[in-house]
Amino acid sequence: MLIVKKFGGTSVANKERIYNVCRRCIEDYKKGNSIVVVLSAMGKMTDVLIEQAKDINPNPSRREMDMLLTTGEQTSVALAAMAFDALGVPAVSLNAFQVAMHTTSTYSNARLKRIDTERITHELDQKKIVIVTGFQGINKYGDYTTLGRGGSDTTAVALAAALKADACEIYTDVDGVYTADPRVVKNARKLDEITYDEMLDLATLGAGVLHNRSVELAKKYGVQLVVRSSLTNEEGTVVKEEVKVERMLISGVASDKNCAKISVIGLSDKPGAAFRLFDALAQANINVDMILQSVGRDGEQDIAFTVVGDYADDAMKVIEDSKKRIGYEKLSLETGVAKVSVVGAGMMSNPGVAAKMFECLYNSNINIKMISTSEIRVTVLIDEKEVDKAMNAAHEIFGLDEA
Amino acid sequence: MLIVKKFGGTSVANKERIYNVCRRCIEDYKKGNSIVVVLSAMGKMTDVLIEQAKDINPNPSRREMDMLLTTGEQTSVALAAMAFDALGVPAVSLNAFQVAMHTTSTYSNARLKRIDTERITHELDQKKIVIVTGFQGINKYGDYTTLGRGGSDTTAVALAAALKADACEIYTDVDGVYTADPRVVKNARKLDEITYDEMLDLATLGAGVLHNRSVELAKKYGVQLVVRSSLTNEEGTVVKEEVKVERMLISGVASDKNCAKISVIGLSDKPGAAFRLFDALAQANINVDMILQSVGRDGEQDIAFTVVGDYADDAMKVIEDSKKRIGYEKLSLETGVAKVSVVGAGMMSNPGVAAKMFECLYNSNINIKMISTSEIRVTVLIDEKEVDKAMNAAHEIFGLDEA
Repeated sequence: MLIVKKFGGTSVANKERIYNVCRRCIEDYKKGNSIVVVLSAMGKMTDVLIEQAKDINPNPSRREMDMLLTTGEQTSVALAAMAFDALGVPAVSLNAFQVAMHTTSTYSNARLKRIDTERITHELDQKKIVIVTGFQGINKYGDYTTLGRGGSDTTAVALAAALKADACEIYTDVDGVYTADPRVVKNARKLDEITYDEMLDLATLGAGVLHNRSVELAKKYGVQLVVRSSLTNEEGTVVKEEVKVERMLISGVASDKNCAKISVIGLSDKPGAAFRLFDALAQANINVDMILQSVGRDGEQDIAFTVVGDYADDAMKVIEDSKKRIGYEKLSLETGVAKVSVVGAGMMSNPGVAAKMFECLYNSNINIKMISTSEIRVTVLIDEKEVDKAMNAAHEIFGLDEA
Repeated sequence: MLIVKKFGGTSVANKERIYNVCRRCIEDYKKGNSIVVVLSAMGKMTDVLIEQAKDINPNPSRREMDMLLTTGEQTSVALAAMAFDALGVPAVSLNAFQVAMHTTSTYSNARLKRIDTERITHELDQKKIVIVTGFQGINKYGDYTTLGRGGSDTTAVALAAALKADACEIYTDVDGVYTADPRVVKNARKLDEITYDEMLDLATLGAGVLHNRSVELAKKYGVQLVVRSSLTNEEGTVVKEEVKVERMLISGVASDKNCAKISVIGLSDKPGAAFRLFDALAQANINVDMILQSVGRDGEQDIAFTVVGDYADDAMKVIEDSKKRIGYEKLSLETGVAKVSVVGAGMMSNPGVAAKMFECLYNSNINIKMISTSEIRVTVLIDEKEVDKAMNAAHEIFGLDEA
């Protein structure tokens, strides 16, 4: 078997943890498997490098930032190779140039395009454990790029796809994907299996275990993922295309508190006012999430939408600056709101989920500010203070508490 | 003009110094010159990385050590590019892969073989200052190598040769090459010019300003070097093929305290005993420096030689272990000895230098333990305690005190 294993920064934060990672890999290596390990930068190293950069130049170029940040993973893989060596197992570290990992040109947020497998395969043939830098690539100019948040997960999945690996294991500090955040919902249970689509919705909605780009990529190439703990030998959660038929209606409950709601009242009845509003935001690279549109009297519209909390002030400024072009009466910002979602592939064939969700929130006296649904997800925007109550209520009503 | 400028680790040890380096480069850039900057790792970063490696594995593989150490220069060049950017001057950082810097395969002590100039030339054509990682290269396996001690000087000289640069400036914490170490000889003077050969002897003998490999390379490709201070605007010392005719007999006095003398007494008269002695040392990678051979009664030989102090114990062990094969009566080690040399291209046409040197040491009551000479150098081995006295005496007798 060829297994790709990915360990994040926490798992390689110091000498002891690096040795722990190596021992985990050696267990499978000794069983006759070929092992490719993908590592992130150690602990807080990326943050330290960013700080160092900002101290030199508050607004560093992205190209040079990537040049700086890529030293982080290179440090991890070199040290891990030394640890494998000390444990008597042949290993070799490779960076993005050595592999090579071809990406798009965009610095700091590049996409993987193609991975050469020749060097890795050559090293695996020599019975070496191959340690690859996560998060980084090279573009057509021959420069380092980085893959943005969750980049090392993406590296691991892409490598598994390129090498046609039998498994791709993502090691984290939790032992799998849960029906809800165990810190919020006491009865949250670990899921044995989950579909790519469910995982995508949970990732996007802040479950935080896997980055959505890595899940998208896994889905695209049919790479079966396992999310498991780097600290225990628990089985973890398998992420794949289809899960067993007699599954739960709902797989999990997720929340996202980094939200803000912006209301544009009295949008003019000139054609394209809504277009000009969202176009102005798109030009400023601000993503809009939930959208609620209502037509009032005299054809005037009100539009409300949510944005990531960090971008709320930027979004307000953009809309104010474009007031003349867009044409509206009033603008208001509501912070202290949060999204709560129930996600489950089972709801595709069961239309009652949304109603059940609203009912349970009503019974808990929670006011719903906005609603958004997809085939496998129902999301509501509520007061941030009521998130924990809402999650527990939803977790219970959909039977996720039961073993 | 195309100028290659090399700054060592001390010159880029922190934010302020990095900015200082950038400003020095910008002065010449603003005059219309093309600038290539070679940087070492910041301050003690290489030492810190070595420590980190040894903590993981007391005997790390050289390949992985190079993989680790090369992050040092990459950090420097990325930060310097950010500083140039903040100062409003376009710049780009390049590592050994990006350049590319082709070396021999030997990890941790590779030799540069060939430098591709395409990328650098392309960036210079865009009016960018090009910042290159010193000390590192890539070998035929596509792996990082490092060039050993003084490697960044070598990178700078090789780049100057490959790019046919008009000047190669090596910035250090002293303002040039002196007739002697100013900390030892009060009247030491800075030299305006010195030949490659003189510099080679001074470098090898511990003047410590330039590494001998970079001087060898400069001589081979006729790259005119300037050694100057990164802190002042002083002219520095020019290192070139020939210097003005009416020059001093002697250019400088140098000392090297990291010495040990090993005496092998009563070497057997079997043929090849001396060969077997030095072969055993060569097998153990121990370089022998001065050699004194004396033939005693009955054809028995005594051989004394010096080695770098750090290798004295290793050398003793090698010779003891090979006692049977070599065949000798007694072995002794003398530490606390040092070499003092006078160097000068002028002595080629003036045979009296050695005699004058011995005379001045005799007058100073300094006992000479061993002597070694070359065309442009006279070296004596003396008691370490008398080094300062010897240097001052030689400095005076050869007229180096005079302005």
